[in-house]
Amino acid sequence: MRRGELNLITDVPGLTVGHATDERSQSGVTTLFGARPLAAGVDVRGGAPGVRETDALAPDALVGQVHAIVLAGGSVFGLGAADGVAAELSHAGIGLRLLAHTRAIPIVPAAVLHDLGGDGDKSWREPPYRRLGAESVRAAGRNFALGRVGAGRGARAGRVAGGIGSASLDLGDGFVVGALVAVNSIGSVYYADGRTPHAWPYEIDGEFGGIRPERPPPLVDPAPPESRLADFARLEAGTSTVIGIVATSAALTGVECRRLAVMAHDGIARAVRPSHTPFDGDTIFAVAGGTAAIDAGALRAALVARLGSAAADCMARAIARGVHEARGS
Amino acid sequence: MRRGELNLITDVPGLTVGHATDERSQSGVTTLFGARPLAAGVDVRGGAPGVRETDALAPDALVGQVHAIVLAGGSVFGLGAADGVAAELSHAGIGLRLLAHTRAIPIVPAAVLHDLGGDGDKSWREPPYRRLGAESVRAAGRNFALGRVGAGRGARAGRVAGGIGSASLDLGDGFVVGALVAVNSIGSVYYADGRTPHAWPYEIDGEFGGIRPERPPPLVDPAPPESRLADFARLEAGTSTVIGIVATSAALTGVECRRLAVMAHDGIARAVRPSHTPFDGDTIFAVAGGTAAIDAGALRAALVARLGSAAADCMARAIARGVHEARGS
Repeated sequence: MRRGELNLITDVPGLTVGHATDERSQSGVTTLFGARPLAAGVDVRGGAPGVRETDALAPDALVGQVHAIVLAGGSVFGLGAADGVAAELSHAGIGLRLLAHTRAIPIVPAAVLHDLGGDGDKSWREPPYRRLGAESVRAAGRNFALGRVGAGRGARAGRVAGGIGSASLDLGDGFVVGALVAVNSIGSVYYADGRTPHAWPYEIDGEFGGIRPERPPPLVDPAPPESRLADFARLEAGTSTVIGIVATSAALTGVECRRLAVMAHDGIARAVRPSHTPFDGDTIFAVAGGTAAIDAGALRAALVARLGSAAADCMARAIARGVHEARGS
Repeated sequence: MRRGELNLITDVPGLTVGHATDERSQSGVTTLFGARPLAAGVDVRGGAPGVRETDALAPDALVGQVHAIVLAGGSVFGLGAADGVAAELSHAGIGLRLLAHTRAIPIVPAAVLHDLGGDGDKSWREPPYRRLGAESVRAAGRNFALGRVGAGRGARAGRVAGGIGSASLDLGDGFVVGALVAVNSIGSVYYADGRTPHAWPYEIDGEFGGIRPERPPPLVDPAPPESRLADFARLEAGTSTVIGIVATSAALTGVECRRLAVMAHDGIARAVRPSHTPFDGDTIFAVAGGTAAIDAGALRAALVARLGSAAADCMARAIARGVHEARGS
């Protein structure tokens, strides 16, 4: 299993990522952009999601393509980041054109995480997210930082710092898969020893510290009975979330992307325990860049299975890497 | 983390399980029964499911309770097993009564797996599943066999024998959680070494062999490029499936059961790689026996999170255990 050149989601050709971080509120926005419209699907699995434009990606919906995807802090206020992104993209002529002379209409789905309980000045009247969204457009590039930046600036992963993670796999034949994630989970990314990542079997080249279970720790209840059910790290619906994106170069349809998103949630399950609780807003988008053509004779569902497996691996790695980078920075 | 007395789903009070195995066709049926109606939810996550009565468990649907749940081999023909179960239960007076003098109407959801490509005589004109369903009613008890019996008789897990698995956790305070599963996955339950279960971190008391990753094997592509996408064990939509049930003694609602089913899919993700592919019919039901009352002051979502985490652990263990038992028998 071989990483892509940068080991970032931007190893998928045509993708760029821009962060905008607000140090005052210790929050931010991370946006993924396609050089051209991306086929897209989504799978919302958490019990407390905060999302926008996800229904436009339903299998029977008209659009089935996106121009950018926003991950943001700020809970519901972060949804406004997509306004800033959409305005900037439209100004640049990027978006759907229903008639030749009308404005470009960018499709910009978004998912948010809750970091309002963290440090930083959250006393704004006008939330910063619209501005941060616009800034993220101007920051877009193939290289981007991991850890406590952008949407991951104020994130928590269980009881430790969370952040932005990314990872990629080059499967050969032009098929590249990548993941981008903001890790703000209620569950821990570590075994009970607090240091061995659940995702260790998926690590490549020590990308998140190279720690392996030499003396496997015992299985523990993440919220033991003596805690009277209140010992999860943070117990408010909507406070915890893994929001992310998986991408592939393969020319998949939006419906096939949806299956990639479903399978990528297995990467959350393998990297975080527990996951998909009523408190998590766990949401994954999947996009296809379309640069790698699929042979007409190929069994497409088999390719989707393989890409989905790679997407799950990349998501597990991106989560562990994001927390590794956040703790180191 | 403590197992229940039997380490079976029937450690949840009021539940019984009955197998009916047809040696001629090398297939069978496994049915879970409640001593009284069970609150229930379901999460269908695979790309090729075969199910019955699942829409009756939708959050906004009327019924929200079940009298039994059927797991069956035989692909679409296995759905008929629920006919046999429903007729037997109704004859015994078990089921909904819309009016006092009308027949009892048992709600019996079902999920099937594809074992028609395996050994055994599949040349029947009248499929055996209706009869096997009825037999499973008469076989019901607290103790039941694991491995190559009932719905697991003809199952495959990747390239090895699959079968029936079960496991339980006693969380204290009267809260017991259990899982029952028929493992017929396209993905493998082992690392690349073919012997260390993915689910090893969740094992209790060597219940599936006690094998741990002393020298962790490298991560491999489950279908490497040289295989030209055709090296998954079996490549037909609907041929592969993990179908199962998680249960708890807690007095959850049907909607809360649905979240348990969602979280229990994380147990599939942790025990099988890849999982939830377009070829898998992965489906999990969740039922609540209602014998353990929930304190009125409890934060119910926190309890659901804890029970769901236990359900995911039990599902991962039941899968590894089912294959362990199948290979040994």
